Amino acid sequence: MTGLHQRVRRTITKHELLPSGSRVLVAVSGGSDSVALAMLLCDLSESLAVGVAGLAHLNHCLRDTAARDEAVCERLADRLGLPFVVERADVAGYATSQRLSVEDAARRVRYEFLERSATRIGAERIAVGHTLDDQAETVLLKLIRGAGPAGLGGIFPKRGRVVRPLLDVDRVTLRGYLTERGVEWTEDETNQDLTNPRNRIRHVVLPELERAYGGSVRASIARAAAVAREDGAWLETLSDRVFGEVAVRVGDGWELDARRLADEPAPIVRRVLLKALRLASGGREIGQEHVTAVAAVLAGACGGTDVPGGRVHLSSGKLVLSEQGGRPR
Amino acid sequence: MTGLHQRVRRTITKHELLPSGSRVLVAVSGGSDSVALAMLLCDLSESLAVGVAGLAHLNHCLRDTAARDEAVCERLADRLGLPFVVERADVAGYATSQRLSVEDAARRVRYEFLERSATRIGAERIAVGHTLDDQAETVLLKLIRGAGPAGLGGIFPKRGRVVRPLLDVDRVTLRGYLTERGVEWTEDETNQDLTNPRNRIRHVVLPELERAYGGSVRASIARAAAVAREDGAWLETLSDRVFGEVAVRVGDGWELDARRLADEPAPIVRRVLLKALRLASGGREIGQEHVTAVAAVLAGACGGTDVPGGRVHLSSGKLVLSEQGGRPR
Repeated sequence: MTGLHQRVRRTITKHELLPSGSRVLVAVSGGSDSVALAMLLCDLSESLAVGVAGLAHLNHCLRDTAARDEAVCERLADRLGLPFVVERADVAGYATSQRLSVEDAARRVRYEFLERSATRIGAERIAVGHTLDDQAETVLLKLIRGAGPAGLGGIFPKRGRVVRPLLDVDRVTLRGYLTERGVEWTEDETNQDLTNPRNRIRHVVLPELERAYGGSVRASIARAAAVAREDGAWLETLSDRVFGEVAVRVGDGWELDARRLADEPAPIVRRVLLKALRLASGGREIGQEHVTAVAAVLAGACGGTDVPGGRVHLSSGKLVLSEQGGRPR
Repeated sequence: MTGLHQRVRRTITKHELLPSGSRVLVAVSGGSDSVALAMLLCDLSESLAVGVAGLAHLNHCLRDTAARDEAVCERLADRLGLPFVVERADVAGYATSQRLSVEDAARRVRYEFLERSATRIGAERIAVGHTLDDQAETVLLKLIRGAGPAGLGGIFPKRGRVVRPLLDVDRVTLRGYLTERGVEWTEDETNQDLTNPRNRIRHVVLPELERAYGGSVRASIARAAAVAREDGAWLETLSDRVFGEVAVRVGDGWELDARRLADEPAPIVRRVLLKALRLASGGREIGQEHVTAVAAVLAGACGGTDVPGGRVHLSSGKLVLSEQGGRPR
């Protein structure tokens, strides 16, 4: 077992990503990260007592290279002797009809496809190829967008049945491994487009930070994110308890016991308000600015405020979140 | 009152930096930030009911421009009709004798001078000129160094009697204000040295992040830091309570009730261990890696580990932190 294999194994063990005896579907795009993920999980499958159930590829039908990407994934499945699940999706059309960015639409369609495929093939887990590089980029992106409490934690190693075994490994190492094994992958040309914020962070900002500090900047950022995730998870647990004590569903909205909530410390108050606003918003996006506005109402600084999907006001010791109008798109 | 004055006033009010009736000593280096700070506090002193007790300048005797910097500060005190407190320090000699970096030595000598001067002049507060730019740079620096729980909060608006009224204002705005008022300041040429990590972040990384996102990146980072500070403060409060319940001073070291501590969630355990390690280290630097090593001992993964200034081991349900050897420099 190489150092790379040990590192991946450690990530899997530490976060309990793949229980012994489980089956995992591997999402592959054709890029180096997901191709290496499929190879590494096959290498480790015996020692982890985990079965690789197959490779799943969604053809987004967005780029000229889509057919080539699909072919690379299919050849990889052949090489590994694994079932290959493939589907074509009209992501551009979905984005237009749902009024989503192409990026958001692709993500939604892809995860929906993966969940469906995992169920059909009988896999308890879905492995995706996010790396240490993706983690560092995500943390920086969230930071410059003014992340709320949860943002600085970056990408989670596990969310539902989706797991990320490569989150402690960098891309350069994965490419070295593929080259050594003589495995092909495809390059996504759109990754070179520096008008995209993530690409600019990847190709310009992170190398500059490395020049500034001269070290393993990506690993340091990932370490800070891990601490933030751990802190955030505990504050969420505490907030969920408080939410259960102060919040009551009333008609179409929610009522919160304002006096009891106001006694809680600010980090708990913000999280309880965020939770309530999300529940009352009918799926609309809630930002930190809305939480701040409602916290001002709770503090008595103003009588009420409009929020996405409704209105919040104080009434005889209750913070009332009422829904207004229909559901969003 | 201009927008700038209102912003500074809001920062002062929000964090209760300058109580009505108090007197504040302003630290000035001759650079634009601290010169603007002195001017703005004088502008606001009547409406805040705060007295500006004087300007304090430490001549570090490090650079050719030291005499020029001192002269600029003295002329500013004259212009504002304020007492001028000045001292010369052999920072380079202190750094050598104390085996500190020049940067660390300068900071120690400066704050010691400011505390002493404030006491002598009868000022309850010391105002220093950190800006939104400093805040964003500090958060990024801590992030790439793998900040622990407290790191992502960046610079605190208040620490002891030191306050930072400019923490929500950017440098460009301050320079515009000085130019408009016809006030001189000095440029610190060492700020141009791109081998210094902070300077590289200031002059290269932050402008690149702004190009990536096209917005007020500094303000977004400061907002995320404020949330991290708020979260961190509450987790510290909870951890201090737990520390009081599980820790006992025994001889030269500390004993922690391992079973009770192990029942606590990870963010609390880490903070309690950090606190205990700091107390037992005799002033040595404790890093996240030491906390991780001791957490492994607590979890029973190994019997003991060396830590700065001593050793930690498990013994009949107690985590024992024993000091070894003398105090560090």
